[in-house]
Amino acid sequence: MDKNYKLDITYDGTNYHGWQEQKSNELTIQNVMQKAVYAATQKKVILTASGRTDAGVHALCQVASMQLDTSIPADKLHYAINAYLPEDIRVLKAEIVKDDFNARFSSKIKTYIYNIYNSRILNPFYNKYALQVGAELDIELMQKNAALLIGEHDFTSFYKTVQGIEKNPVRTIYNSKFIKNHDLITYEITGNGFLYNMVRIIVGTLVKIGIGQEEKDIISIMNLKNRIYAGPTAKPHGLFLKNVKYD
Amino acid sequence: MDKNYKLDITYDGTNYHGWQEQKSNELTIQNVMQKAVYAATQKKVILTASGRTDAGVHALCQVASMQLDTSIPADKLHYAINAYLPEDIRVLKAEIVKDDFNARFSSKIKTYIYNIYNSRILNPFYNKYALQVGAELDIELMQKNAALLIGEHDFTSFYKTVQGIEKNPVRTIYNSKFIKNHDLITYEITGNGFLYNMVRIIVGTLVKIGIGQEEKDIISIMNLKNRIYAGPTAKPHGLFLKNVKYD
Repeated sequence: MDKNYKLDITYDGTNYHGWQEQKSNELTIQNVMQKAVYAATQKKVILTASGRTDAGVHALCQVASMQLDTSIPADKLHYAINAYLPEDIRVLKAEIVKDDFNARFSSKIKTYIYNIYNSRILNPFYNKYALQVGAELDIELMQKNAALLIGEHDFTSFYKTVQGIEKNPVRTIYNSKFIKNHDLITYEITGNGFLYNMVRIIVGTLVKIGIGQEEKDIISIMNLKNRIYAGPTAKPHGLFLKNVKYD
Repeated sequence: MDKNYKLDITYDGTNYHGWQEQKSNELTIQNVMQKAVYAATQKKVILTASGRTDAGVHALCQVASMQLDTSIPADKLHYAINAYLPEDIRVLKAEIVKDDFNARFSSKIKTYIYNIYNSRILNPFYNKYALQVGAELDIELMQKNAALLIGEHDFTSFYKTVQGIEKNPVRTIYNSKFIKNHDLITYEITGNGFLYNMVRIIVGTLVKIGIGQEEKDIISIMNLKNRIYAGPTAKPHGLFLKNVKYD
């Protein structure tokens, strides 16, 4: 009989076209995961993630759910699946959850981090995991603007509209801050949900403010409720889905 | 007129056969660096590193010296060279030093780190930069043994003999310790010099002690003055040359 499973998954998104299949010939995390579950259990499943990560975006801990009928014990299932996965994807944990659990619709809080490597010289070790910014950054100003995002806001200025999808642009941000460690500046944002490209557009805007190319503060940009006033969408490779929380 | 230059270099060693050319058809850091210097300055140089790093070993900061006659100012030279380097090698700094400076023979203190990822589940992000150890490790015991290495010792048990090279096996270790950060355990060792494969053999021995496969402590193994009593040579990809100090 089918049981409902929750999987914690980590992946290096460098070589993938994101979580979800867009065109049938593209390599996606979802596809590779589903094939590994099939190889381990001989069962075809559909995995639902907490949200789609874009091409090139990484996950320290993505959550997905699936219906599966298998005799493999839940606490051994991740080892069985991992045996069929490439080294850039790993299931950290598998557990049986209540039937009404859905990784996407049950999610309550998500945290993303975005790495900025602030140096004129590229770092071979951060190259695939951080946005390199050569210009000097006013971190204090960026920190101040980051903090302004905490609370309930209309994020119309900070997401990419996807045709045919009507969205409520209001989200609540619980935490938004920069953590500096030498040349590595990590932005961390926690909220009840995120719109398409939202974290990357916020980062692009905060960097524009930090290098002095944007005089408006982030709340003034927010109040204009128009994507054209925000900064560019920061590249995907600096972004990591850190974790997803459920009730 | 030729001047003597000191270069600070960082590299991800994954794709290279170490610092120094062994066979003429192998890709080495030295080779790629010398070609980049030539492309930037039209001058053929020979780079001498503080020491050869093995195939797959990384450097946070390797030091090399070279004789060069160029009109490019020293504080711009690293940008000129970097323009011709692949993204996994970067010159951090170039400076003119005294004529008698030699990156190899003038070096006084070196620090290496070795990353161990202690988990049954592989981590996609540490995979190329840490040795995965699935077994439980007695870190306290490893820490105690690591500390025993501090001081002047005969490291005959802990290096690979290279034919035709006579060596003094005595080295002084100034610091030797583990730093634990969740599942990532970093071993750091500082000394006045290191023999061939010495750090990797020490790590292999400390891991063997940590998983309970070796009852002797590291000083007892040292006193046997024979490589066969030490543990295996730990894989190269967890090893980083952290820095080299000069007078």
